[in-house]
Parts: sequence; C-alpha cells; structure tokens
Amino acid sequence: MNPGYQVPPSGLFTDFYELTMMQGFFLSRHNPHAVFEMFYRKQPFNGGFSVFAGLGTLLEYLEGIRFTREDTAYLKSTGKFREHFLDYLLTLRFTGDVHAPAEGEIVFPREPLIRIEAPLIEAQWVESLVLNIINFQTLIATKTRRICTAAGNRPVLEFGLRRAHGPDGAVSGTRAAYVGGAGATSNTLAGKLFDIPVKGTMAHSWVMSFGDELTAFRRYAEIYPEGCILLVDTYDTLEQGVKNAVQTAKSMGLGESSGFGVRLDSGDPATLCRKVRTILDAEGLSRAKIVVSNDLDENVIAALVDQDVPVDVFGVGTRLVTAWGDPALGGVYKLISVRSNEKTLQVLKLSDDPGKQSLPGSKQVLRCFGTSGSAVADIITGSEEELEPADSLADLQPLAENRNPVDPGTIAWREALVFQCMKEGERLYPALPLSDIREFSLHRLSSFSEEILDLDRPSPYPLFLSEKLSRLKDDLTGSFHS
Amino acid sequence: MNPGYQVPPSGLFTDFYELTMMQGFFLSRHNPHAVFEMFYRKQPFNGGFSVFAGLGTLLEYLEGIRFTREDTAYLKSTGKFREHFLDYLLTLRFTGDVHAPAEGEIVFPREPLIRIEAPLIEAQWVESLVLNIINFQTLIATKTRRICTAAGNRPVLEFGLRRAHGPDGAVSGTRAAYVGGAGATSNTLAGKLFDIPVKGTMAHSWVMSFGDELTAFRRYAEIYPEGCILLVDTYDTLEQGVKNAVQTAKSMGLGESSGFGVRLDSGDPATLCRKVRTILDAEGLSRAKIVVSNDLDENVIAALVDQDVPVDVFGVGTRLVTAWGDPALGGVYKLISVRSNEKTLQVLKLSDDPGKQSLPGSKQVLRCFGTSGSAVADIITGSEEELEPADSLADLQPLAENRNPVDPGTIAWREALVFQCMKEGERLYPALPLSDIREFSLHRLSSFSEEILDLDRPSPYPLFLSEKLSRLKDDLTGSFHS
Repeated sequence: MNPGYQVPPSGLFTDFYELTMMQGFFLSRHNPHAVFEMFYRKQPFNGGFSVFAGLGTLLEYLEGIRFTREDTAYLKSTGKFREHFLDYLLTLRFTGDVHAPAEGEIVFPREPLIRIEAPLIEAQWVESLVLNIINFQTLIATKTRRICTAAGNRPVLEFGLRRAHGPDGAVSGTRAAYVGGAGATSNTLAGKLFDIPVKGTMAHSWVMSFGDELTAFRRYAEIYPEGCILLVDTYDTLEQGVKNAVQTAKSMGLGESSGFGVRLDSGDPATLCRKVRTILDAEGLSRAKIVVSNDLDENVIAALVDQDVPVDVFGVGTRLVTAWGDPALGGVYKLISVRSNEKTLQVLKLSDDPGKQSLPGSKQVLRCFGTSGSAVADIITGSEEELEPADSLADLQPLAENRNPVDPGTIAWREALVFQCMKEGERLYPALPLSDIREFSLHRLSSFSEEILDLDRPSPYPLFLSEKLSRLKDDLTGSFHS
Repeated sequence: MNPGYQVPPSGLFTDFYELTMMQGFFLSRHNPHAVFEMFYRKQPFNGGFSVFAGLGTLLEYLEGIRFTREDTAYLKSTGKFREHFLDYLLTLRFTGDVHAPAEGEIVFPREPLIRIEAPLIEAQWVESLVLNIINFQTLIATKTRRICTAAGNRPVLEFGLRRAHGPDGAVSGTRAAYVGGAGATSNTLAGKLFDIPVKGTMAHSWVMSFGDELTAFRRYAEIYPEGCILLVDTYDTLEQGVKNAVQTAKSMGLGESSGFGVRLDSGDPATLCRKVRTILDAEGLSRAKIVVSNDLDENVIAALVDQDVPVDVFGVGTRLVTAWGDPALGGVYKLISVRSNEKTLQVLKLSDDPGKQSLPGSKQVLRCFGTSGSAVADIITGSEEELEPADSLADLQPLAENRNPVDPGTIAWREALVFQCMKEGERLYPALPLSDIREFSLHRLSSFSEEILDLDRPSPYPLFLSEKLSRLKDDLTGSFHS
C-alpha cells in the first residue's frame, strides 16, 4: 500500500505556538491526559451536508510524525527552546487514541469529526496537522459530492491538477474528490497512489503541433482507437472541429462501441452541445459522447441538466479542486477535558461571540433512521452515555432551529457514528481501499432525503443534544458566569 | 540549501493526457523543438497587478523530475502504454531552457510568465507542473501583497496552516506569502525550509488547560518574557482577559521594551481594540501591542485602518492562504511554435471565445519608466525583437483599453523583464534567499502609482503590443480564416 501522503510527515509541520506551548507544558511539568475534539460550525457552500474525508491520510501522518536532529537544530536556532526540551522532542511520538466517524460519512455542524485523547503535549502538537488535513479533504469531498449530485447519473471527471493549491493540494485534493464521487482523475500521481481510475484526452497543443487538425485527429485515433475523445475547439468548433472529428471517426471505423466522442472546452456549452449533438446524430454517430469542461461547477452543471443539454460526461477542474465559493472549511480543535491525579477537569471555551462557543464533553453521534430507512435526525450525546431507546426526541434540546418536527414514533433504529480508529498511536485496522470509502459514502448519502441534499435551499437536518450533554453545557457555562 | 519543495518530484505528477500525448508524439516520431508560454488572462481579486511567484520551486522540480520503475509499472497497468515508450520514459529528463521574469516581479495579464523551450515531449510533460506551481504561488503572493498594502506599515503575520489546502498548500503557500510581503509565519516547517521568521503566541487551550486564566498567563510570561503576547478572549475579553493580562504584565515587570502585548481572536475588532487600547493606556502600558486575528482580509483590514482602529499587528490565516474571493489564478500554457528540419511553424490557438485567443510568438516584456522612476507602461514584444528607443507608444496597439494615454516623451528608460534562468535543464544561477526575493518584489512594487495599486478600483496599467507582434498576430489569425 502506498502512503496516503506526499509531503513527508514532519514534527515541524505545526503552528509555532504549538511548540512554544509544548515547551511551556514541559517546563511546567503540566502534561495531563487531554481530550480534544475537532468540529466545524457551518456547512460550506450554503449546503445542507458535508462529506467527512481525510481520516486515512491523517492516521498515516500520526503514525509517522517525529522530529529529526535537523529539526531540533532548527528550533534551537530560533533562540526560544531549551536543550532538554529539544532532547525530549527527539523521543516524541504520537501515542494517543483517535475516535472519528468512518471516512466518507455524511456529517453536520458541531458533530465531532476527530477526537484526540493523548498527553496534552502530544495532543497540542498534532492540532495543526489534524485541522489542515481534515478541513481540506472534507471541503473537497463535499464540493465534489455537490457537483456529482448536480450531474445526476452522468460521470464527473476531476481535472483540477493545474489550478490546485500546490502539488499536494492536487494530490490530496484528488483523493478527496474521489471519496466525494468523482469517477476518475487526470492526476496520474494520485491515480497511482490511491488506485483511482485515470483519464485524459488531448490538449490543444496536440492539434496545433501537427499544424493540421485532421492529421492530428487521425494520428491520435490510430494510437488510441478505444475511448478516443477528440478535442474539437482548437480552431472553429462547428465549422471545422466537429467535422474533422466525424470524418476521423467514419474513415477509421471508430464505431458505436469504441467509446468515441468529442470534447468541448470553450464557448457556451448549452448552445454548442446541442449543435454538436445534431451534427453527430445526423452523421450516424448517435452513440458518440460529448464531454464538456471549462469552468464548470454544481450551478453550471445543474443548469445544463435542467435544460436537458446533451452532455455525457463533465470534466471539472478549477472550481472543484479549489472549492470555489467557499475555499476553506472552518474546522476548529478544542480542548474538552484534562485529567491528572484521577481528577478530570471538563473545560469549555466561552466567547464574546456566542457562535464560537463549543459543546462540552467528549461526544458521540447517534443517527436516527426511520422505518423507511431514511436518516431523520442526529443526536449528539456524551461519548459514554447510554441513551434509552425510548428517549423521545421531543424532550431533547434542538441544536439549531429544527423547522421540521421529528415524530419519535417513526424512529426504527439508531447508529453510533463515532468509532475508535487508533489506540496508543497505532491504527486499529488497515487502511481501506479508497473505492470502498467512496461506495460507503454514496451509500450513506442515499439515506438522506432530497430536501436535505438540495444544493440551493436545503432543509436543515434535525440535530439534537442529549439531555445529559445539555445539562453539562448549562452547568459549565453557568460555573464561569457565577 | 533545503529543497524548495515538499512533495518529491515525480514524473507522474502530470495530467494523464500529457502522457498519452507524449506516447503519441513518440510513436509518431514527432518530437520537434517546441516553445510554450504560460500566461494568465485576468487579474485575480479584481485587482490591478499580480506578484509573480513560484519560480524557484518550479526550477527545483524541473531539475528533479523523472520516472521510476514503479512509475512505469503503474503506467503499464493502465493498459495504455507500450513497452518501448515506457523504457524511454525511464531515461527522460527535462533538458529544456526556461525564460521568466525574476521571481517577485509585478506582472500583468497576457505577459509571459514562463517560457519553456524543449523537445515537444518534454515540454508537454511539464505543462501541468508549471501551471500548478506558478498559478498557486502567484495567486497567494498577490493576495498577500494586497493584504500588506491594506495594512500599510503594520506587520502582517501569516497564520494559514490549518485552513490551507493540504500540507503542501500550507508549505508552498507560506513561501508565496513571504514573497508577497508577510513578515513572519506560524508554519514552522516552512520557516525551516525557507528561512522565514516564525512567530506564535498561545492558543485558548493553553489558558483552558490550567483552568485559571491568570495562572496560565503568569506561567507563559515566566517562560517567554520577551515578546509575550497573551490571548485574552478565552472567557470574557474586557471583564477578565485584558485585566488578567495587565496584572501579569505589571506584576512581572514586562515593561515597555519587552514586546508585551495581547491578542484578540473573536468579536468585533473595531470596538474591542479601542476598549482594550483604553484599558492598556490607562494602566500605563501604552507600548503594549494589540495583535488582531480572526477572518481578516484586505477589505476588513482596510476598513480598520481607515477608521484608525488601534491595531499593531495583523494575523491573517484562512483568507490569505486560500486566496479568498478568487481561489485560482487561471494561468494557461500555450504552444507558440514548433521547429523541425530548420523550419519553424508559428502556431496560434483560435477559439470561438475571443478572450481565449493567445498572442503569437515567443515574447519579451519591456517596462517603460518615467523620469520620476515610476513604471508607466509595458510593451510586449517579440523575444528577439529590437525596439528602437524612439518608438512611440502612441503608434503601438494597446492590448486592453488604456484609459490614460502615455506621453512617450516622459519615458526615461526601459527594462526587459524576461530572462533566461535555465539552460538545457540546469539552472543558470543558484536559488536566491527568499528574503531577497521579497525585498526585490517590494522594490518593484514601489515604482507603480497608487492608482494602479488601488485595491478596489485600480486604474488599468497601460499595456501595448509591439508593431511586429501585432502584425504577426494579424497574419496568423488571418491565415486560419483565409
């Protein structure tokens, strides 16, 4: 199995304040067992759901991070660190436990995405890493799922490498896009690392380098007769490109079953696709595919699908891989409790800004399914809490405005979403093939109603706090204000 | 010198169609000497300028990329490639020439950023790499320069690691942010790799883990008395946080010269900073600094500066490192010419979309400076073209609407911006320290007028085409339409 990362794990891949705090804890002999949770506060893209991604990558990093002598020499050069702390760093490994939903799970604001239980120094060390990986991959998986939702049953190919945020923005972006539903990628390195199908056609430069479009098409079709997609907009799409493509297909017998098609990368796709389809059909190439690319996103695709524009495959690059519209998921990592000498101190961040206040305690999420199998509500509970099956949702505190009351009588079963995946720094199970994660995610999505998955105006999915967690929250908030 | 990359160079880091085209060229024995140029069409963020960045990183990749046997085994598994082509890939190196402006240069749409001259197969191979690196780093350097422009003479610290697009989105993003003017970073790994100053204060978890804010502040100040910045918004900023910070500073004698300060990471900064400033001043801590973070960008900062809000340092994360508002620079890489058997074929992409049409020929940019030393216009010329000093701008074709006519009599001197930096696959000079690139960029920026640098409504900077290039463009466009 290839590593799930391209940037080698480094103990230095962390915000500098984590290191100054780590030394502070070390010098203060203040290294209690700590619990941190990562969560986010707001769905990206004004959407109704997110797709949790990046867990596999994170676990590999957590197993691999350490400091080299070169790293501690660098830290020494900053003048901020003492020799015996730097010696300690050389021995440091992540030895904590990790709990999380399964990768690919459909998740909601304020639900725990990652729980880290470790000595405070270690838990602080990995904060930036956890946030960096989970924020980005969850964002891209979510964006891709939105794009695939808009595309319906038409395949979406991810072509974002050239506009991604650096080489790993492309590689780990492609990983997340596959989790989120992209059918294939143009990114060959990601294809190799994660066993993602790779696809590609030709660039304008292929056509231009031969000087003559027909020669260029013929040459390509000779070498790649199967799945031959010709790019028809280098010069004049309708007057020349499509005609040359048709001539190539006919003269070379690229028949009905070879996956022959054309790609359009400029112009107005609604108009052009219809005209191109008419030409292809008139020439007896009714099974020839039309692949469209060029600044697509879920909105453009939804409009094309809505207007019945004849497109067979969408190639999506820039706006997928940069999470256009909302290029960051604002996930945060908050201290939940510290335990020393058998005493556990529950903590809670208050803030002048009520939106920034956390939920206390280490948490579990129970997803409630109706008799028809659809997900009807999530309850956020304490991680050790046993909820009676009879507990009525009506008695629970809604976490956000729940416009649609949930009839507790309709709940057929509940599932816990958060599992332990790492114990004392070691993974509890081997990495799953990414295609399994992708299938799992699609399966989980299918239990949500169309109203919740709506791209534009989703119904809010009902979220509740367990009674015990509500009480803990009130107690802790009160204790600071008393 | 550390490598300028974190993701190891791989021959597979390329769009799959580059590889199918490469095999196509190889099998067709069609490997003429080719010239490609990268440029972009539109300033990001509706701004008036961009800061060219990423060149150093790109050159290191170009020196390092190759295929391993594992890579070619993977390619073989796709079923698309022939054995002798894969053997050829194992020997492939980038042996081309590269021309570019100096890293940090101020650049404009349609100006050449990277020119690659190489055998067609190699030039095609590196397309995705060139675009990925230059698009991203130029975007982030530009965003950062906008933020620093808004901040005026107040330092900007880059805190984006946790929201960046994956680990390298953070590392190479930090590199670009430094080129664009950030004074320091929180990203310790980037600090080590590129010799960028690193900074950090404390997180809410420091305060919470001690249970008591005053104890937490004191402990931190004991360990880090110099430059001690206390985070005051964990509980109640004004009623508790600032008071505890003042008490800590006074009781521990963190005097006027120790760089003592407070950080605010939530709430309305305009209101809070004024109140905090009043408290600090009343307590005799008039030199204590106020550091502000939390969803800042050039617009928020400009408003704070405009209202004379007392902020000393801006910490900018999410919106800087994700290029909020415009998360991709749409740079493209276009074939300019192919030469075989001593015959050069100039090519030009046409398109139904006039905005997508390229400029022909390999190009140079001449920057015209006025007698006062300010940049007044750029002329895009042929790379080998000698322009007479007397050539009047009035006779040249403006590339975009130039609202302000340029009086050619005011031009004191011209500078060529595009230099050769790699010859036959080897760099012509060693990598510059990043701090030199940063200084160079700031120096170059200083020659532009405030109107052109305006963040909201910049005046368009005058761009012209040389007569010869205009003619070549008309000839080539005509030849396709004739």
